[in-house]
Amino acid sequence: MKNQQFVLAARPEGLPEEKHFRLEDLAIPAAGSGQVVVKTLYLSVDPYMRGRMNDRKSYSPPFPLDKPIAGGAIGQVTESLTETYRPGDIVSGFWGWQRFAAVDAGQVRRIEAGGAPLSAYLGVLGMTGLTAYFGLLDIGKPQPGETVVVSGAAGAVGLVVGQIAKLKGCRVVGIAGSEDKIRYLTEELGFDAALNYKRPDLPAALQEACPNGVDVYFDNVGGTVSDAVLALINPGARIPLCGQISLYNNGKPDVGPRIQPLLLTNTALLQGFLVGQYADRSAEGMEALAKWLAEGKLRYRENIIEGFENTPQAFIGLFHGDNTGKQLVKVADPV
Amino acid sequence: MKNQQFVLAARPEGLPEEKHFRLEDLAIPAAGSGQVVVKTLYLSVDPYMRGRMNDRKSYSPPFPLDKPIAGGAIGQVTESLTETYRPGDIVSGFWGWQRFAAVDAGQVRRIEAGGAPLSAYLGVLGMTGLTAYFGLLDIGKPQPGETVVVSGAAGAVGLVVGQIAKLKGCRVVGIAGSEDKIRYLTEELGFDAALNYKRPDLPAALQEACPNGVDVYFDNVGGTVSDAVLALINPGARIPLCGQISLYNNGKPDVGPRIQPLLLTNTALLQGFLVGQYADRSAEGMEALAKWLAEGKLRYRENIIEGFENTPQAFIGLFHGDNTGKQLVKVADPV
Repeated sequence: MKNQQFVLAARPEGLPEEKHFRLEDLAIPAAGSGQVVVKTLYLSVDPYMRGRMNDRKSYSPPFPLDKPIAGGAIGQVTESLTETYRPGDIVSGFWGWQRFAAVDAGQVRRIEAGGAPLSAYLGVLGMTGLTAYFGLLDIGKPQPGETVVVSGAAGAVGLVVGQIAKLKGCRVVGIAGSEDKIRYLTEELGFDAALNYKRPDLPAALQEACPNGVDVYFDNVGGTVSDAVLALINPGARIPLCGQISLYNNGKPDVGPRIQPLLLTNTALLQGFLVGQYADRSAEGMEALAKWLAEGKLRYRENIIEGFENTPQAFIGLFHGDNTGKQLVKVADPV
Repeated sequence: MKNQQFVLAARPEGLPEEKHFRLEDLAIPAAGSGQVVVKTLYLSVDPYMRGRMNDRKSYSPPFPLDKPIAGGAIGQVTESLTETYRPGDIVSGFWGWQRFAAVDAGQVRRIEAGGAPLSAYLGVLGMTGLTAYFGLLDIGKPQPGETVVVSGAAGAVGLVVGQIAKLKGCRVVGIAGSEDKIRYLTEELGFDAALNYKRPDLPAALQEACPNGVDVYFDNVGGTVSDAVLALINPGARIPLCGQISLYNNGKPDVGPRIQPLLLTNTALLQGFLVGQYADRSAEGMEALAKWLAEGKLRYRENIIEGFENTPQAFIGLFHGDNTGKQLVKVADPV
């Protein structure tokens, strides 16, 4: 058994590439007081992590150079200096891109053996599912009969947003980046319509798909896709602002039509949020998501790349539209 | 006694000019059932009215061509077909730019003879005061020690916003368009700092005036002024979106840096609002504003132009920075 980690070797200026990451060997850590050592089983790679690779002020501090990149993960405890966890326990948490990591016990959460596969606890029953749940319901407040548009609709967050909006009785229109994704959204997930953002007539197609305007726009993408959606918002529209993946790799601030006049004349609300703001309500969200999942009302896909050594590649793929649903790296099987 | 009205003669493409308005003679109307006839004493001219001169979707329908322009007004009842009002009563409401108008009784509110001058009921104790009160407190939610920036700070809404924020224990920075206004804000109203938006180093000056960043930005102006403020927002910032006067006269959508990335990384809230949304709480707002006024904690200025025939000129002046405080037209004295 040996340990390995990926560190941030250089800050990307635009799209991240393999050269920005460096694989290093290191010793397996020992647990400190109140810590567990986890063997990583799955790593979550998510678009927001690109922001932390810049040396700019944001909601999370920048990743330091030459230190391991950190993200959501699932692991199995191999050593414990706590009362709470024993070797063999499966936990989810947030730690470095490492095969083995020492983590404070307060930073992990036990996963009980149960209905859903382990990987779901990084997706539909994890950060991305909760992001969809709280952003849509707490900020978007969709009402029956309203029109909900979601961008990045075939991503881990977007596909949950659309399905919850359907459960709430809304007309749901997804925007995604391939014909395969479009078909998945309409034929398998029950979206009322889905549009490829690459089509040149997106604004007109969107208007046709939203004959009653847009009441809720769950934005994962930003840029010109958002320009097209915002042109259609109704009075009192709500816009949960979850991501801006189209802009994450821009070195300079992007320029576009100012949105304040549209937001003003429609008395609209736009709210940037983080799932962490809802930490004290995560049990509520988990319960609802697990119930819908068990009832077959919530479906999902995962895109799982095998092998720790492929972690940077999995992350890079997020910005090339490679994934439908949650992008994960499978590092090891539990014992 | 004769009646006159100003109608919208043509839709302005950019800045409004005298040629867009036409003065017409007409008969003094008779009250219909449930109506009063009012003799106009004061007319309110407000920046938002420019939006209604365009033939575009907005929160209020466009003013029709060749019909009287309508806005806030104070008048004295000359005829009443209601139980509620008698000739001689003073009322505020919303009617045409007319010397005499017939108005539904439900659309007016009695002004009791009292401490404040009549004109205050179109300003600090009227629509603009309530706009400041609800937008700042309900959306901005300023906390003691926070930094509040207000644009259009020497306008009718802005000067009330800044003073309420001071009463709430905030550091208050105003942005306005002349050295006279700057002095008024800092020397007479107690703003901690005030900046002329015309200075070329506005972003740097603003940063210096807000050493702890910006927690609340009450936006009346939009455009490049807002770009400079938004660059300084803190995590959790709140942005009541009240007006966009810098853009009202643009024929085409204005272009600027996209604001969503800043709002996302700071988990900020931006909310367009209308004072009408708070109609059921107007008594609360009026009471608070009247109390502060009586205690000398709230001060204001008015810019009163005499004569009905000068109404278009008063309106046009709003877009040339002519007014400090509320811009009004005095049409007649009460009898």
